[in-house]
Amino acid sequence: MTTQIDPSLQPFFNPKGIAFIGASTNPNKLGYTLARNLIRCNFPGELHFVNPKGGTLLGHKMYTHILEVPGLVDLAILLVPAANVPGVLRDVGRRGISAAIIGSGGFREVGQEGADLEEECIAIARKYHIRLLGPNCIGLMDPYLPLDATFLPPPPPRPGEVAFISQSGNILAAVIDWARGQDLGLSYLISLGNQADICESDVLAPIVADDHTQVLTLYLEGVKDGRKFVHEASQVTRLKPIVALKVGRFASGQRAVASHTGALAGRERAFNAAFWRAGVIRADNTEEMFDWARALAWSPLPHGRSIAILTSAGGPGATAADELERNGMQLADLNAATVDSLKQILPSAASLNNPVDLLATATPQQYADSLTCLLKDEGIDGVLTILQPLPMQTAGAVAKALIPVIYSADKPVVVALMGDRLIQEAVEHFRAAHVPEYRFPERAASALAVLAQRAEFLCRPEEDPQRYQDVDSKRVQEILNPYLEQAKLFQQAINLPTEAVLAILDAYQIPTLPTGLARSAAEAAALAEKVGYPVVMKVASPAIVHKSDIGGVALNVSDSLSVVQGFEVIQHNALQAHPDAEILGVHIQKMIPEGQEVIIGGVQDEQFGALVMFGSGGVEVEGLKDIEFALAPITDYEAQQLLDNTWAGKKLEGYRNLPPADRTATIQAIKRFAQLLDDFPQFVEFEINPLRVLQASQGVIAMDVRARVMM
Amino acid sequence: MTTQIDPSLQPFFNPKGIAFIGASTNPNKLGYTLARNLIRCNFPGELHFVNPKGGTLLGHKMYTHILEVPGLVDLAILLVPAANVPGVLRDVGRRGISAAIIGSGGFREVGQEGADLEEECIAIARKYHIRLLGPNCIGLMDPYLPLDATFLPPPPPRPGEVAFISQSGNILAAVIDWARGQDLGLSYLISLGNQADICESDVLAPIVADDHTQVLTLYLEGVKDGRKFVHEASQVTRLKPIVALKVGRFASGQRAVASHTGALAGRERAFNAAFWRAGVIRADNTEEMFDWARALAWSPLPHGRSIAILTSAGGPGATAADELERNGMQLADLNAATVDSLKQILPSAASLNNPVDLLATATPQQYADSLTCLLKDEGIDGVLTILQPLPMQTAGAVAKALIPVIYSADKPVVVALMGDRLIQEAVEHFRAAHVPEYRFPERAASALAVLAQRAEFLCRPEEDPQRYQDVDSKRVQEILNPYLEQAKLFQQAINLPTEAVLAILDAYQIPTLPTGLARSAAEAAALAEKVGYPVVMKVASPAIVHKSDIGGVALNVSDSLSVVQGFEVIQHNALQAHPDAEILGVHIQKMIPEGQEVIIGGVQDEQFGALVMFGSGGVEVEGLKDIEFALAPITDYEAQQLLDNTWAGKKLEGYRNLPPADRTATIQAIKRFAQLLDDFPQFVEFEINPLRVLQASQGVIAMDVRARVMM
Repeated sequence: MTTQIDPSLQPFFNPKGIAFIGASTNPNKLGYTLARNLIRCNFPGELHFVNPKGGTLLGHKMYTHILEVPGLVDLAILLVPAANVPGVLRDVGRRGISAAIIGSGGFREVGQEGADLEEECIAIARKYHIRLLGPNCIGLMDPYLPLDATFLPPPPPRPGEVAFISQSGNILAAVIDWARGQDLGLSYLISLGNQADICESDVLAPIVADDHTQVLTLYLEGVKDGRKFVHEASQVTRLKPIVALKVGRFASGQRAVASHTGALAGRERAFNAAFWRAGVIRADNTEEMFDWARALAWSPLPHGRSIAILTSAGGPGATAADELERNGMQLADLNAATVDSLKQILPSAASLNNPVDLLATATPQQYADSLTCLLKDEGIDGVLTILQPLPMQTAGAVAKALIPVIYSADKPVVVALMGDRLIQEAVEHFRAAHVPEYRFPERAASALAVLAQRAEFLCRPEEDPQRYQDVDSKRVQEILNPYLEQAKLFQQAINLPTEAVLAILDAYQIPTLPTGLARSAAEAAALAEKVGYPVVMKVASPAIVHKSDIGGVALNVSDSLSVVQGFEVIQHNALQAHPDAEILGVHIQKMIPEGQEVIIGGVQDEQFGALVMFGSGGVEVEGLKDIEFALAPITDYEAQQLLDNTWAGKKLEGYRNLPPADRTATIQAIKRFAQLLDDFPQFVEFEINPLRVLQASQGVIAMDVRARVMM
Repeated sequence: MTTQIDPSLQPFFNPKGIAFIGASTNPNKLGYTLARNLIRCNFPGELHFVNPKGGTLLGHKMYTHILEVPGLVDLAILLVPAANVPGVLRDVGRRGISAAIIGSGGFREVGQEGADLEEECIAIARKYHIRLLGPNCIGLMDPYLPLDATFLPPPPPRPGEVAFISQSGNILAAVIDWARGQDLGLSYLISLGNQADICESDVLAPIVADDHTQVLTLYLEGVKDGRKFVHEASQVTRLKPIVALKVGRFASGQRAVASHTGALAGRERAFNAAFWRAGVIRADNTEEMFDWARALAWSPLPHGRSIAILTSAGGPGATAADELERNGMQLADLNAATVDSLKQILPSAASLNNPVDLLATATPQQYADSLTCLLKDEGIDGVLTILQPLPMQTAGAVAKALIPVIYSADKPVVVALMGDRLIQEAVEHFRAAHVPEYRFPERAASALAVLAQRAEFLCRPEEDPQRYQDVDSKRVQEILNPYLEQAKLFQQAINLPTEAVLAILDAYQIPTLPTGLARSAAEAAALAEKVGYPVVMKVASPAIVHKSDIGGVALNVSDSLSVVQGFEVIQHNALQAHPDAEILGVHIQKMIPEGQEVIIGGVQDEQFGALVMFGSGGVEVEGLKDIEFALAPITDYEAQQLLDNTWAGKKLEGYRNLPPADRTATIQAIKRFAQLLDDFPQFVEFEINPLRVLQASQGVIAMDVRARVMM
């Protein structure tokens, strides 16, 4: 698989000639800083500067107009007052330049006036076929080309393996400074600004195509188009890992919702589901993102989660063991041959269990030989090595002995270095040798876990969601039409009556319970005779969402007298609780065999489309919070993951006195439901709660349903 | 409240004269390093050195024997081969020195021979009334006295506010080196080694009594005596905070258990419950421990959890908001006056919502004035200030402007500094001024949360657990005696029969259901008549723990024919499932009103005594994992916390169609149950599952019970 790069984006990744409009001779202006960076960075292409006043800048001629600039120019950089940008951009277009970075601020981020200006720029760009980066961005850096097209203080970061894409210019600036302090090399940096044109999804493929980049890191405040992001990122992660830090986790406001799913779903659930689908690794903070990026860039991937710890001190070994387990890794059992070999190398007091404790008398040679032993053991997938100031040896000497062993290994080895000045030399050796090192065992453990996560992702089946052909989407459309018209008329979401929802599920082959609507007690008794006793009675009213809460449900009704009484009681309760609700009557259903009960729900996320929820059903959904989400449509593998990651799903295999239930039918129901929501984005909320899962191979039945549509 | 210091420990905290036995003139020996540290550290008391060869060391006379040493000596330091330690220790005792640090290794940590040697030292110390630190420890440091009684490479850490107590010498060494790099001052450091005598609990009170120490940090691999630790730490935390890193979280092996509680309880649950009881703040890793310690040492405590964020960049502001919410804090709503004042100070494009965004053009004065405004707002409990490299200002200048404002505030202000070299000057200003600063917003947010946690702890009622007087412990002892004898005889835990368990609960006034034991179908029918239909039938067999799993339970049995049939079916099922079990018959109970069902369970932790569990009951306890633990005995406040922190407890207040249940009776049952387990440590496992909680003020009933005892 290879990724396709849009040729119109090429100038942002390998420009041949740059014109900078807004260069300044005043050292206090950003226009000076940017020009200086362009000149000093050793950019191999042509460089031209434009300032209406003309003159020279650091030995370079300044043209008074972009149209005067001679030679090859395929990228323009604009740093002029916002009001002047449209005019300049038009000239850029006339000059035949088809890529521009607008560094200037004063656009959408400052309000309506700026937004209008930004729209004007977009229109001009469209007319002249110019691709835009920004406005309100810091620009980009390519330490390999080299190119520094930012106004940040020099020096730029040194060349490395990690690309960084940022929706915040300030974060980019801080990360560059921090990376310098950490001596972390970077392969490409881009600040996206307001994303008037180019957005996060556009730059993934061009960056991954760059051989210098081994890992992409992303600082996201949102995505411009959720489905496009998932599509692009899914392509890229098959080739190279993406680690994303998404902020604004808790900022999303609450919407009015009418279902459990609606209450539990939210922007962050959608992002998690999207990242999971696309194989994007989500970091919780900046340090984590780069901790993980270094390990992904420099280490081979493990074949499993069994890890050995090599230490010369018990305390840090115990901490590392804790953190490995917390991250879902296991301590490997050393095989007998490994223990024998270690015995040859180490003093008798050394601990030959895992963690392997060399004791504080450890020599560089003992460290290296022990690591060699551990790496040979087939039961060990990776090694976490711990090094702290030793009484008799320098950490630097140990590092030098370890590096050749780590280099020749086909398993990941990460190093936890504890201390500060006494380990500084070792830090430098490891960094230079591209061995991932961390200040404390906890960070090293989480890096190993991410390597395992990445390895597991690459083994994930590359299946497309199966589309069921036996569904009747035409019938669903017909059922929906009148309600959609109503929704359009009233400009609000409309609750569908139960019959309509059941018919819709039926059209998608999700089993439902035959249900009759009784408008009178007599009709109820007749229907009950027809479906057979015992029956369940439920109030029929689109306005009453949680029926059992208000006494609108009677279970196990076993004779006609009770049905007649039940009808009256339910009507009474419903009217008491919802005096203004339209009550259509009472639904009569046959009681069906016991089984396990789960919930399948869905909402439409405005970014990512249909988001499907699965978990423990009933009325306590929000209390138990035993739920997982995935984006529709859903593959078989994904549906299985929903089951494996919830207690409701796990216990379908049987638990204690609960007999095994029909997992296969549950998975089918999830996939069909996801297809329905994907086909009909008009469903703003849809919930089957409970879906009763009968014993193995007996199928599932949607016991209660609710759905809302919006035009 | 003041803490009592054991006078025998005084020489470890303020020695007047030190004799070091094992001093060496060979610079490659630890005996030289330690002697050099003692001499160079400017210790104000007397210093004497002992080496059998005599001679001089760095200008100091070396005595050939400790008995020759003149003058005042109240602390001996031994660094001689393990085999020589007992002899030297005896001489130390004869010399009248009553405190000794044994730095030598080769004791319990190397096996049985070493353990015997250690026992010998303990016996000698007891005979001569010597208090021992170690063996196998690095010693101690007091940067204020000053004293460096370790063999670590100099210089020692600078004086500060944080004491560090470590059960690992290697961690102590690494932390000292790391603290130097962070410029973190420390007030006292002690390495506990093998804890032959002095353990972690002993040193808490003496350290907290030291005025220099504001915060105690602890590196724990375990505790020597759990109850003593809880007692001592509870005293200390009322005065000064303790932050503990406890490792070995996942290392504890699995024991054979016969109850849900047994399966879910474990060493870490017990540690968490103990830390919670004692007000000890548990850190997950070393960085966190010191991040939090700095904030606790330097900041006033907040009055609530409403925080304002002051930033000059949107991205880090959003990250900080996320992290505050993740840590249980809220973003404060700014009051109108605050917004008005900020308007006067800031440009119109600045964001005056929370986060307050000053924009990248922020000046030092704007930072300082905005912070002043925010601190005046009564709705704001603390401020998280973010600073990253600015295009026009140095971070150092902003720091200088902020520090006086932070100094005069009575609310906590923490600073997130993003970057590396460009913020270095600011870092140094903040550190010198004792303003807690962190490299990323996420760490700053967690520090604020810990300040809030500490403030809340100090508001926690200081109640002693109420002891119920209306319990009949004599009767419980009588019931238990035969089973305890049996347990002793067979050297294993014994399951109590249900009648005995019910009688025991009855003696502690925990309501149970009147239950009759039927040995025949006819007897069952007669009993059912007596208690009144409908009834519940359950197999009576101490060997069958999970009765419903094997078809050993029949519910809602409503006539004598069904009782007779039920008896046969249950007997049959039980024999099928457990052919070898002794089956006593079938229990007959009256069906009681519906209600909510919870679990109350308990186990004995070998360190901390009875550990009580509360949560969602039924058969799915381990699946739902909706449980919390507390140490027995339990206060009213603690019982309420158990309810507030579980879904099972929260929904007792009523949820949707669930009516409110009897919280008060539940709390009483928890407290009585805890008292029972505290009074009778012979109960190794005890479980009420379910405890049915009836509607408000209707009480609770233990529906099913199991208990095991061990002598």
